[in-house]
Amino acid sequence: MLGIDPGLRITGYACLVGDAVRPAIVEAGVFRLATKGDPGEGVASVASRLVELERDTVDLIERVRPERIAVEGLFAHYKHPATAIVMGHGRGVILLCAQRLGIEVTELKPAEVKKAMTGSGAATKEQMVGAAQRVFALPEPPSPPDVADALAIALCALRRELV
Amino acid sequence: MLGIDPGLRITGYACLVGDAVRPAIVEAGVFRLATKGDPGEGVASVASRLVELERDTVDLIERVRPERIAVEGLFAHYKHPATAIVMGHGRGVILLCAQRLGIEVTELKPAEVKKAMTGSGAATKEQMVGAAQRVFALPEPPSPPDVADALAIALCALRRELV
Repeated sequence: MLGIDPGLRITGYACLVGDAVRPAIVEAGVFRLATKGDPGEGVASVASRLVELERDTVDLIERVRPERIAVEGLFAHYKHPATAIVMGHGRGVILLCAQRLGIEVTELKPAEVKKAMTGSGAATKEQMVGAAQRVFALPEPPSPPDVADALAIALCALRRELV
Repeated sequence: MLGIDPGLRITGYACLVGDAVRPAIVEAGVFRLATKGDPGEGVASVASRLVELERDTVDLIERVRPERIAVEGLFAHYKHPATAIVMGHGRGVILLCAQRLGIEVTELKPAEVKKAMTGSGAATKEQMVGAAQRVFALPEPPSPPDVADALAIALCALRRELV
């Protein structure tokens, strides 16, 4: 199960095997996309990040060969629509890559993802990082926090499969 | 100059040659993406539309070989963030295709686009369609209206090159 938390600066990912009771990390980390200026500032900068994101995503999928990819749905309320739309660009590239490579995508509610990791649908970023360290018995807290988010997405998707 | 107005149901496009004084249409039309359910309803449906959009966009670019692609920027205020984010998915795919094929992208303000076609930055959809028919001396109003929007985007981008 591959969880992805797309962004145009940092995209977190986490590939888990096993089931929700005994999940094991195959690989987890982030793609850092070249940051010339802010996302949304220049269309050329956004376009070149999207090409990087596509390449990184295809490489990752071919490396870990997930049965399924999980992402968060579009249920959140966004204060900055322009930023949210630019984020949508990255999410679109992830969906495109998954579909082209024939991998099914599962969509999860953000609160459900937080709850799967911490027991609370309103967990803070710090709580997510701390819970990820405990759940996966990591020697250090996952960093940057985008890794913890991706771990939570993959874990939540595995839990769903148990039901 | 290729103007594109991305959407996940209908994406309008218009390729113009010449300059802003005497523009001529090479090709204009829409991609209609398979509509199983509403955009935003199912992630599988969105993902498969994105793959269609990518294929249609690459085919179009290879057919008309534009020097430049113009799209609207993210300046609009959106009432429905989730819908806007899904739209952002389509825009992301357009930017990705352009960048991969080495074509520069120009970003225009929506009001500037409306003004280029009608003289008013607050033109209605009907005014855009009527103006497009006159400016390009078309035998009939362009239909669907997404074609008029794409014509306006391309025209506006050509005007900028005059400056």
